[in-house]
Amino acid sequence: MQPADTKLGRSCLMTALRRYSAAVRDMEQTVLLPSLLREVAAADDADQAQEGGGKDLYEHYLMLKALRNTAESGLVVSDDSKDLGHHHQSLSTTLEPLLESDPEVLFHFHMHGIFSIMNSLANKSQSVTSKYLEIIGVTN
Amino acid sequence: MQPADTKLGRSCLMTALRRYSAAVRDMEQTVLLPSLLREVAAADDADQAQEGGGKDLYEHYLMLKALRNTAESGLVVSDDSKDLGHHHQSLSTTLEPLLESDPEVLFHFHMHGIFSIMNSLANKSQSVTSKYLEIIGVTN
Repeated sequence: MQPADTKLGRSCLMTALRRYSAAVRDMEQTVLLPSLLREVAAADDADQAQEGGGKDLYEHYLMLKALRNTAESGLVVSDDSKDLGHHHQSLSTTLEPLLESDPEVLFHFHMHGIFSIMNSLANKSQSVTSKYLEIIGVTN
Repeated sequence: MQPADTKLGRSCLMTALRRYSAAVRDMEQTVLLPSLLREVAAADDADQAQEGGGKDLYEHYLMLKALRNTAESGLVVSDDSKDLGHHHQSLSTTLEPLLESDPEVLFHFHMHGIFSIMNSLANKSQSVTSKYLEIIGVTN
């Protein structure tokens, strides 16, 4: 699922952010009636459906826009805020022993994590756009 | 160990990056003879010594400068490159089941991770600067 450039030694976080922003902009310009995405299953392939946690495409659409705003602004949501709290908390608790490892490893781990997730979110945005076109009967 | 602003609902990644950059700049301008940091234990408090994995202050100094460059450029080191590979790999393998969770949770997890680690690296840079001043006999 990762694009070819992640296989290179180094990849740029700004490129990943630009790609994600562009994919969301394209999605926003295409999806003129977002409500048509309600109750549409997230994706055909099992992987994405599992990742999506049973959300419909409309929820994906909202999430992709919200995360794009967060990514562009660089605002970090704290551990406790929103209802992400307990998921995030359990993630952090499980990781606690690992998080005491070398700060260099940890730094690269999170940089790589942000990079991968932005690429994955860009792909999801493109997939919402394609699915919408399919719903309204426009073939790519 | 986390500064007060992480306790707020939202914090800015750019502020954390600026703070880290400033701390490294200050360290570079103060530490005129980096070799004086060789074979000096990383920190007095047990936490930091454990995190540092037995590196001396000179190695910390080099690491802090290198990571600052990476953070400023936004370049992401891939899983396989450098000798970080196997640490990173083991981190990723342990996390694999968690990484299949909601992309929203994962996104915030990594954003928060980068934010925390940059604050921690800023603190480490300040601590190297203080230790250097102590070594050359200048008291703050």
